[in-house]
Amino acid sequence: MRQARLFTPGPTAVPAEVLEAQSRPLIHHRTPAFREALASVTDGLQTIMKTRNPVVVMAASGTGGMDAIVANITRPGDTVIVTEIGKFSERWSEIARAYGVNVVPVEAAWGTPVEPDGVEKAFASHPDAAVLLTTHSETSTGVLQDVEAFARIAHDHGALIGVDGITSIGCHLVDTDAWHLDALVGGSQKGVMIPPGLAYVAVSDAAMERMRGGRHGVYYLDLLKAIKSAQKGDTPFTPAISLVLALRRALEMMIEEGLDEVIRRHARNARAVRAAVRGMGLDLLASHPSNATTAVRIAGGRAGEVTQLMETEYGVKVAGGQAKLKGHIVRLGHIGYYNEGDMFTLITAFEDACVRLQITEKFGAGVSALQAAYAEARR
Amino acid sequence: MRQARLFTPGPTAVPAEVLEAQSRPLIHHRTPAFREALASVTDGLQTIMKTRNPVVVMAASGTGGMDAIVANITRPGDTVIVTEIGKFSERWSEIARAYGVNVVPVEAAWGTPVEPDGVEKAFASHPDAAVLLTTHSETSTGVLQDVEAFARIAHDHGALIGVDGITSIGCHLVDTDAWHLDALVGGSQKGVMIPPGLAYVAVSDAAMERMRGGRHGVYYLDLLKAIKSAQKGDTPFTPAISLVLALRRALEMMIEEGLDEVIRRHARNARAVRAAVRGMGLDLLASHPSNATTAVRIAGGRAGEVTQLMETEYGVKVAGGQAKLKGHIVRLGHIGYYNEGDMFTLITAFEDACVRLQITEKFGAGVSALQAAYAEARR
Repeated sequence: MRQARLFTPGPTAVPAEVLEAQSRPLIHHRTPAFREALASVTDGLQTIMKTRNPVVVMAASGTGGMDAIVANITRPGDTVIVTEIGKFSERWSEIARAYGVNVVPVEAAWGTPVEPDGVEKAFASHPDAAVLLTTHSETSTGVLQDVEAFARIAHDHGALIGVDGITSIGCHLVDTDAWHLDALVGGSQKGVMIPPGLAYVAVSDAAMERMRGGRHGVYYLDLLKAIKSAQKGDTPFTPAISLVLALRRALEMMIEEGLDEVIRRHARNARAVRAAVRGMGLDLLASHPSNATTAVRIAGGRAGEVTQLMETEYGVKVAGGQAKLKGHIVRLGHIGYYNEGDMFTLITAFEDACVRLQITEKFGAGVSALQAAYAEARR
Repeated sequence: MRQARLFTPGPTAVPAEVLEAQSRPLIHHRTPAFREALASVTDGLQTIMKTRNPVVVMAASGTGGMDAIVANITRPGDTVIVTEIGKFSERWSEIARAYGVNVVPVEAAWGTPVEPDGVEKAFASHPDAAVLLTTHSETSTGVLQDVEAFARIAHDHGALIGVDGITSIGCHLVDTDAWHLDALVGGSQKGVMIPPGLAYVAVSDAAMERMRGGRHGVYYLDLLKAIKSAQKGDTPFTPAISLVLALRRALEMMIEEGLDEVIRRHARNARAVRAAVRGMGLDLLASHPSNATTAVRIAGGRAGEVTQLMETEYGVKVAGGQAKLKGHIVRLGHIGYYNEGDMFTLITAFEDACVRLQITEKFGAGVSALQAAYAEARR
């Protein structure tokens, strides 16, 4: 059996050019060649995050970057507000509690975002809250939140905002400087389509100011130290060299395509996939869907059968639900390097599996809706 | 100009088989294929560290693993004893202080190890010390320490021992279970000869017991959580998939060669390189040399000229000195996948550069001593 193609909300399929970049003989990190690569990566990340803030690249998974934000911009005894709308947004609360920080959760049902009004109320009842920790695209449900509005509210209340952009950067507009995001984290196996193992974090002046006194015990995840090294074109500890070289190539490809077009392509794919799902008569989970992944409700807890059949019969690897959604949703991933042909593969396999499992009735309903959506987009 | 070959004490040259393993289309981490790879990696790491303790693999550089040890096995207000003999052993102290832990340094001049007696005295004057943090092979000086003796002393005083094995694992015997090492950290770009980006940590029952109450705020670097996941064949956060797949291949190669032979090969290369240096009339820095790297004193602060000429003229990349040794030593790296032919390249280039720079006088003195040492080893 051939290896399955990845259509998961991370890790995403890695372009051949990028695999090639990371398979060359290793170079040393204290060399002009590596410094040049790191500078190129930093520039590229600033471009896709639309920021002039310092950006640091860390050898860590995305969670390591989230942890770094909490460890550096909160202080023991702080109160933070967290929008909880799924597994990954709840992680902000887990991290904050691990550091002895008081968490005020603002919850919404999994599948919906928190409304700005909910954040406003939380600040009104907790005027001492120092930081809002929030999630742009919630990977477990495929929901997009209005972080631009959240940032305004946090700043109105004198608080900082820390944003998980792990599955929004590179597939949505993340206008870091215009929205005044204080700390923004991204991951490598998502919009920037390389293997996992790198986190990158952009930090505002206000966030740096807050780091300068009273934060938690921190060493490997010390953002101030990392920024200081970054400003000298370096990293404080040995970087994940092969992944940085892969990232340079991936960012070159994205910038060659153009950020606006990258985002438009993701929006086009996401809209077409949603049209296909509706064409099949299935329900979408997300009221405000992200371009990263489309979560589809599957009745009777049978989502595992669908993902299993898709992988074994068609070599198409998609994700199921996590935590309380396990068995109840399939997540069709389209963050990364995917074109229309890839979505044809994805939807045809999904539809075929659903028909074979008698979850939907007729062949072609999803595929034709997909085709129609792309035709509409081309007009 | 062709890319320089790496003869640095990490990153080391990556075998072609390993580069190939990490350049295949990515697989997802929540799959039987990845679980199998992770299980193989865990077994392989236990083999080269000679332990049945749980081993966790983290997306982090070696420093991340050192940080994890400090964050998990020390508590706020603890006193720890640290053997300080170079840049990396001093890092233990920096990390401990970042967590508000009291540090009792036991120093030795850079180039020499701390004697067991020095550790004994430190415990005698600080009987409350909870942990000894020490370094098996100090990468900045190429010195090997007697961690077996250190472990006995720590345990006699009711303390735990945390060991940096970053440049000893895979090139020296590290007999974790026989020596009762409580926490041992390794890095990926060293003896296991893959690119940087992974740290791995082996943890004893006693260390786990200590983690269960009162440790520092920790989330991404939470070793208890990582061990719990590892026992289910999993990782708590997205692993650095491509590096794990590379590591599987590298460990297979090491186990095929046999750990004893891998260590013998390193010892043979290290002895031959030291003979070559002496043959050239130059001085070794380390009184107790490690098999990882040979530090050579260069008079007049001219080490940078040597490393520069070796790289640009012969495509041989070696490291210079760090911190107070900058300019004063050249570090000839032989940790990893190196055979006699590689050492011929290394020493010939080193000798040629030294003669051209009039640091030594005659061609062939080093190379012939190298050849003689290998001939002796073959008898």
